[in-house]
Amino acid sequence: MADQDEQSAVGIESPAPSVLRWAEPPEGPALVLLDQTRLPAEEVELGCADVPELVRAIRALAVRGAPLLGIAGAYGVALAAARGDDVAQAAELLERARPTAVNLGYGVRRAAGAYRRAVEKGEGRERAAAAVLAEARALHREDAEASGRMARHGLALLDELLPGGDGHRLLTHCNTGALVSGGEGTAFAVALGAHRQGRLRRLWVDETRPLLQGARLTAYEAARNGMPYDLLTDNAAGSLFAAGEVDAVLIGADRIAADGSVANKVGSYPLAVLAKYHHVPFIVVAPTTTVDLHTPDGASIVVEQRAANEVTEFTLPRTGGADGNVGGVPVAPAGTPAYNPAFDVTPPELVTAIVTEEGAVSPVTGAGLAELCARSSQVTIS
Amino acid sequence: MADQDEQSAVGIESPAPSVLRWAEPPEGPALVLLDQTRLPAEEVELGCADVPELVRAIRALAVRGAPLLGIAGAYGVALAAARGDDVAQAAELLERARPTAVNLGYGVRRAAGAYRRAVEKGEGRERAAAAVLAEARALHREDAEASGRMARHGLALLDELLPGGDGHRLLTHCNTGALVSGGEGTAFAVALGAHRQGRLRRLWVDETRPLLQGARLTAYEAARNGMPYDLLTDNAAGSLFAAGEVDAVLIGADRIAADGSVANKVGSYPLAVLAKYHHVPFIVVAPTTTVDLHTPDGASIVVEQRAANEVTEFTLPRTGGADGNVGGVPVAPAGTPAYNPAFDVTPPELVTAIVTEEGAVSPVTGAGLAELCARSSQVTIS
Repeated sequence: MADQDEQSAVGIESPAPSVLRWAEPPEGPALVLLDQTRLPAEEVELGCADVPELVRAIRALAVRGAPLLGIAGAYGVALAAARGDDVAQAAELLERARPTAVNLGYGVRRAAGAYRRAVEKGEGRERAAAAVLAEARALHREDAEASGRMARHGLALLDELLPGGDGHRLLTHCNTGALVSGGEGTAFAVALGAHRQGRLRRLWVDETRPLLQGARLTAYEAARNGMPYDLLTDNAAGSLFAAGEVDAVLIGADRIAADGSVANKVGSYPLAVLAKYHHVPFIVVAPTTTVDLHTPDGASIVVEQRAANEVTEFTLPRTGGADGNVGGVPVAPAGTPAYNPAFDVTPPELVTAIVTEEGAVSPVTGAGLAELCARSSQVTIS
Repeated sequence: MADQDEQSAVGIESPAPSVLRWAEPPEGPALVLLDQTRLPAEEVELGCADVPELVRAIRALAVRGAPLLGIAGAYGVALAAARGDDVAQAAELLERARPTAVNLGYGVRRAAGAYRRAVEKGEGRERAAAAVLAEARALHREDAEASGRMARHGLALLDELLPGGDGHRLLTHCNTGALVSGGEGTAFAVALGAHRQGRLRRLWVDETRPLLQGARLTAYEAARNGMPYDLLTDNAAGSLFAAGEVDAVLIGADRIAADGSVANKVGSYPLAVLAKYHHVPFIVVAPTTTVDLHTPDGASIVVEQRAANEVTEFTLPRTGGADGNVGGVPVAPAGTPAYNPAFDVTPPELVTAIVTEEGAVSPVTGAGLAELCARSSQVTIS
């Protein structure tokens, strides 16, 4: 283990910048984003004063992560309304910025609906703009609250599964913190909650090849929060399990099928197998909106195969304001074919528990999941 | 899976350069190495005309891999003898080039011993030089023969474990081919043997973080030999197992304890656990010289922890004749601590078989291993 004195250059000195915030300087309203393409090298804010600027930021991945995109989309509609732009056109532009991001469309439609209702009620432009900003803020707040509830349920589960001891040693994969959420995220929020209660002994951060979200983003969030952490290559997790250094695995989810099969970033399934072999709890933390009751099981989940160059080249991080894509440095012979699935599927029998904002289900069953989703839909604001 | 038509730019057009060869041009003898620091981008030979040049090449990792270092060391002594340099001093320089490389010392001492015996017999300088060159060539040949024998035993084992079918789908980790050996290597030699007999359906090549020996070197060797292969991130192996796409795992070994515990490149143990979970054979291929009967078991193997910057930075490959170390590009926040073990240990109960040049042991037992080692020591030329 590396010397903890080295930790951490990012961090304690300056307050963490907001991942996304609404600002109203004299020159007019703006949505201010932490530019995630510059992380971890630089913490640079990017102000978007109109919808085309925000669309460019979304496309460039300056803002990313499903729930956060929904919030950004809602604020984008608020921006158009505040400027007196054509709100319907702005909503269309925003929805198309990343057409596969389900949450983006949800946030945009919800904000546009608030605007439309205000106009239909005969409100003036200023009050309609205020209504849509209020809706964006409500979505932002709800997402933050869902994070908080997931963290509480997750911590309670850890207490139950890991009684006693001198703090938890938790292993996580990919990025599931504040950078993808209106709050403090999903799996990462549980680890952060444990840290705040003095019960996090160590956060093991998988680097998460090929795109290194663990190294670039989770290590950044852990350092920012002063958490005790170590980065590792994904394949070094086995050594930690063998040495008895992992008390629980905490991951997020991209989609959860009706039977409890969990699709998540590639590398999650090998961790589930290692956890099973070493009798370590494997815990999935995700909001109920991640459960897709129309997908019956793991076999029905289509796994996206991505381009070979993510594996055969190393993409240099953006710094100093370079625009557009930076070319990759080849690490394999030219023309090397690659097997590059974006995610993998973990069957429910390898998942100890699924934690949502409505509570945890353990053991994981379709009936238990359906019950949590039903509870959630009773409080969902449509 | 990527389109196989892309494969391969390295390859078929030009003959594979020798990894290491003795040359006697008019200007004097030289040891010519394939500069491994330039791979896979460039196939550049590096001629060493004297021992200091060879020592620099060894230190720069232009030549690497335990058995190959032994051979290079022996030829280095031959070079000193042929030039009329001080052979004892040259041997000392070579041995110190990488003090932890056991095989380097073995090759150097064996060659220096041949020189000393010739001198003691009253041979002239020229005949003594010829004797040491003959010894280096013998070592080179023996190592190549051991590769061939491992490949034959490994293929026979695959036939036994995987009867029928339309060819093997083999998964490998790190680099175990001609680049580390006087012959065609260890685990890779088995896969290459299968390919030559038309029985390799697919070679799955783990990229092998952090130093990417799979991407840089094994993919190069697979392309060079026209093998059907795909590169993958180490954490994508789980998806292949889950999909039933792996028939056997073949890896090398850094050290094998007396009980059959196998220390190998980090990432081997998680593959062993995945293989066990999916009922897939996990096969270790290594010469009997890798078995260390003085290390009783896996717990006695000390695992080297390496520097954090191997994980927190990406080291750019050398091209165009740059000298020395090229700086790394940070991929994690400055000061990020890392857990970076160089290898992991797989207990014998997860190893289906250990294949050596003297045959295979399966199931893996201390007694079986000891018997193979005894057989080997009867034929070792001291």
